[in-house]
Amino acid sequence: MLTDRYELTMLAGALHDGTAARRCSFEVFARSLPGGRRYGVVAGIGRLLDALADFRFGPDELRSLRENGTVDEDTLAWLADYRFRGEIDGYPEGELYFPGSPVLSVTSDFADAVLLETLVLSVLNHDCAVASAAARMASAANGRRLIEMGSRRTHEESAVAAARAAYLAGFTATSNLEAGRRYGIPTAGTSAHAFTLLHDTEAAAFQTQVDVLGVGTTLLVDTYDITQGIATAVEVAGPGLGAIRIDSGEVGVLARQAREQLDSLGATGTRILVSGDLDEYAIAALRADPVDGYGVGTSVVTGSGAPAAGMVYKLVEVDGRPVEKRSQNKTSIGGRKAALRRHRSTGTAVEEVVYRVRPDAEPPALGEHDRRLQVPLWRDGARVPGLPTLEEGRERLRQALVSVPWEGLTLSRGEPALPTTFLP
Amino acid sequence: MLTDRYELTMLAGALHDGTAARRCSFEVFARSLPGGRRYGVVAGIGRLLDALADFRFGPDELRSLRENGTVDEDTLAWLADYRFRGEIDGYPEGELYFPGSPVLSVTSDFADAVLLETLVLSVLNHDCAVASAAARMASAANGRRLIEMGSRRTHEESAVAAARAAYLAGFTATSNLEAGRRYGIPTAGTSAHAFTLLHDTEAAAFQTQVDVLGVGTTLLVDTYDITQGIATAVEVAGPGLGAIRIDSGEVGVLARQAREQLDSLGATGTRILVSGDLDEYAIAALRADPVDGYGVGTSVVTGSGAPAAGMVYKLVEVDGRPVEKRSQNKTSIGGRKAALRRHRSTGTAVEEVVYRVRPDAEPPALGEHDRRLQVPLWRDGARVPGLPTLEEGRERLRQALVSVPWEGLTLSRGEPALPTTFLP
Repeated sequence: MLTDRYELTMLAGALHDGTAARRCSFEVFARSLPGGRRYGVVAGIGRLLDALADFRFGPDELRSLRENGTVDEDTLAWLADYRFRGEIDGYPEGELYFPGSPVLSVTSDFADAVLLETLVLSVLNHDCAVASAAARMASAANGRRLIEMGSRRTHEESAVAAARAAYLAGFTATSNLEAGRRYGIPTAGTSAHAFTLLHDTEAAAFQTQVDVLGVGTTLLVDTYDITQGIATAVEVAGPGLGAIRIDSGEVGVLARQAREQLDSLGATGTRILVSGDLDEYAIAALRADPVDGYGVGTSVVTGSGAPAAGMVYKLVEVDGRPVEKRSQNKTSIGGRKAALRRHRSTGTAVEEVVYRVRPDAEPPALGEHDRRLQVPLWRDGARVPGLPTLEEGRERLRQALVSVPWEGLTLSRGEPALPTTFLP
Repeated sequence: MLTDRYELTMLAGALHDGTAARRCSFEVFARSLPGGRRYGVVAGIGRLLDALADFRFGPDELRSLRENGTVDEDTLAWLADYRFRGEIDGYPEGELYFPGSPVLSVTSDFADAVLLETLVLSVLNHDCAVASAAARMASAANGRRLIEMGSRRTHEESAVAAARAAYLAGFTATSNLEAGRRYGIPTAGTSAHAFTLLHDTEAAAFQTQVDVLGVGTTLLVDTYDITQGIATAVEVAGPGLGAIRIDSGEVGVLARQAREQLDSLGATGTRILVSGDLDEYAIAALRADPVDGYGVGTSVVTGSGAPAAGMVYKLVEVDGRPVEKRSQNKTSIGGRKAALRRHRSTGTAVEEVVYRVRPDAEPPALGEHDRRLQVPLWRDGARVPGLPTLEEGRERLRQALVSVPWEGLTLSRGEPALPTTFLP
C-alpha cells in the first residue's frame, strides 16, 4: 500500500479497456542535478529489490481498497494475484549518474509496471539524495573518518536507509544500531552531554566511561569548559586516551587549541573528532586543521539542501512505439534506453552516452576503456542473483570517482562533470 | 533498535556506577524556528506514543547487541526487561510551538529516559517539520482544496507519516493509500500522463477514465496541448466533468485560460486543479487565479526547505537539581519546565510563558483567556487514555491559528509570532 491512489485507478482503467496488456517501458531518470552539483550517486537499488519482493496485495490491503471504493472488483481480483512479472535493468549501486541517465528501466505489461512508480521513486529519490550529498562530504573529508549520526533528524525508518546510503557513499560508520543490524554497517557512539550532566562532576562521568568502554573511548569534552574538559579527560584516561569530541563553538580554532593541549599533555596519539551542524563545506573548511574525524548529522540525512533527488518515472515506450509528453518545461525523450560511459585511455570519463534499445539494432560499440552502465536487476519474478553487495557498491563508487575529471569533484556549483549525449 | 549506539553505552555506564537510578527530566524543544518562520506546529505525538508502546529489546535485538559487543551482559539483562516506566507530558498535536517551548517533558530514571532520545527526535523532527510547512501552505490556500502527493519524493515510510502531518496541518487529502488505511485520511488521485500516453489517443484515455471513475473525475489535460486537452475532456465527459488538472507550465496563466475555455464550453462547474513543484509561495501567488485546488508534492514532504524541525532532547534536571551545559552557541536552560500561553481578552495570543515545575511551588496563575500547553501523555507504562484524535488535532490547530496575531500568519521571514518568556 506504499503507493499512490492514481496508480490503482489507472490500473482499473487499463484493465477495463484492454490496454493493461500493452508492453511498456518506464524509465527512471533525473532531469537535472540539484543545486549545481556535478554528479549524482545511485543508491537504494538493493533496498528497492528487497521491497519489490514484498510488494503484494494481501487480504487486509484488498479489504481496505474495497471499503474505500478505490477500484472495482475485477481490479481487486487482479491485485490479489499480483506480483511484478516484468524485467528491470538499471545502474548498480555506487554508480554515478547525470541528468538524463536511464538509472532504471522497467519493462512489462502496463499493469505490472504502473503500480511500481511510487515505491521505486520513494526509495531512489531518498537514497540517491543522501548518497549524493554524502559522497561530496567523503570527498571533502579526504580520507578522514566520517560518522553518520543524523538518525534523530529524519523519520525513524529513513534514518536506517540514510545510514546505508551514507555508508555506500564512503562514510566510515553510523550511530544507528538498526542500520548496523540490518546492513552490517559499523556502528559508533560513546556519550552525549547528558551523561556528563548526570554525574556530580565531569571527572566522575569520564571515569565511568573509561571503566566501561576502556581508554580507547571518545570523551566528549565541551559540556562545560573545553580546556578544563581536555585536562580532566587526560587525567582520567591517561595519555593513551583514544579520542576527544568537540560538538560546539568554532571547531577549527578549538581543534587547533585542543591538539596543542593534548600534545603538551603527552596525549599525542589522542584523536580529535568534531561534530555539530557540519556539512560538506564545513568539512572542507577544516581540511587544514588537526581534525581526525567528523560526526555529521542533519546535513547528510537530509541530502544537504536537496532532500529528494528529483528522479521521475516516465512511460517511454508502448508496444515498441516511443512515447513522450509535450508539456511545457517537463519534456521527456521517448523510447527504451540504456547507457554507456566513454573514457579516455587514461581512464578519465568524458561522456555519458544514452542510446535507444531496439530489438533489431546493435547497441553502440564500446571502446577499450568504456563500459555499459545498466545491468539486469530483476528477472522471472525475483532479483537477479549475484548483484553487487553494499561493500562492492562502495568500492564501485570509489573507482567511479577516480575516473571523474578533477573539476567534477569540486564542491562549487557548476555543470555536471560529464555531458550526456542522446543518440537518436 | 531505532536508536543511537551512544544511548546504550551511556546506559551501560550509568548502570555500572549507579547513576542510572537518578531521577531525571529530559526536555524536547527547538532553539529557533527554521528560515525565519513565525510558528511551528506540533505533530507526531500520536505516532510517537504508538512507537513507544513497541519500543522493547527482544531476543533478536539482544543477540545483535551481544555480537557487536555494544554493551556488557548486565546491560543486556536490564534491556531484556525494559519498557519505558516514566512519565511524559507534552504539547498535544496541532498545538503551536515557538523557540524554547517545552514540547515534551520526559521524567523517569536516567536509564529509562536516555534510551528514548533518538526515537523521540526522529518522530518529532520529521513530523513537526512537515506540519509546520504544511500549515503555511494551508494558510496560503485560504480554504481551497490541498492534496498532498509527495510520497514519491521521500522515503516510503516517511511518506505515510508526512501524509498524516500534512492532514493534521490542514491538507484535504493525500495520494498515499497506506496513509488512508493506517490513519483514515481521505485519499485522492485519478491518473498520470502515462495513462494518456498508453492510449492511442487522448480521447480514448479520457473515455476510459470517465467510464471507470464517472464524469466527476479529474482529467489530466496537459500531456500534449492543453487547449486541445480541455476541448477533448469536455467532449468526452460533457459539461458535468468534475475537474481538470494542469501539471506543468505557467499554471496561473493556464488556469485563467482554462477557466475561460471551460466556461465557454458550458463546463462552468468543472474545477481546476494545479500541481507541479508548488510550495507555499507559489500557492499564495495563485490566490487571484481561478484555481480550485492544489496538488503539492516535494515541498510539503520535505518541510519546504527545512526537512528537520531542529528539536533537541536535553537533560534539564537530575534529582531535583537543574542542569545545563555551557557549550558555546548551544546553551540550554536547566530545570523541568512547562508552559502557558497568554491571550488578550479578544482571544489574540500575546506570549508563550515557560515556567519551572517545582514540587513545592504553584505554577503561575492563568488569566481568563490563557491556557496551559502541556498535557499528560504517558503514565504507568502506557499512553494516557482519551488523547486527542488526528481530527481533533486538526481542529486544535485551526483554532490556535485564529489566535495568532495577523502578522504572525504572513509568509515573509521574521520574528516568531509570539515571544517566549522564561520565568526564573
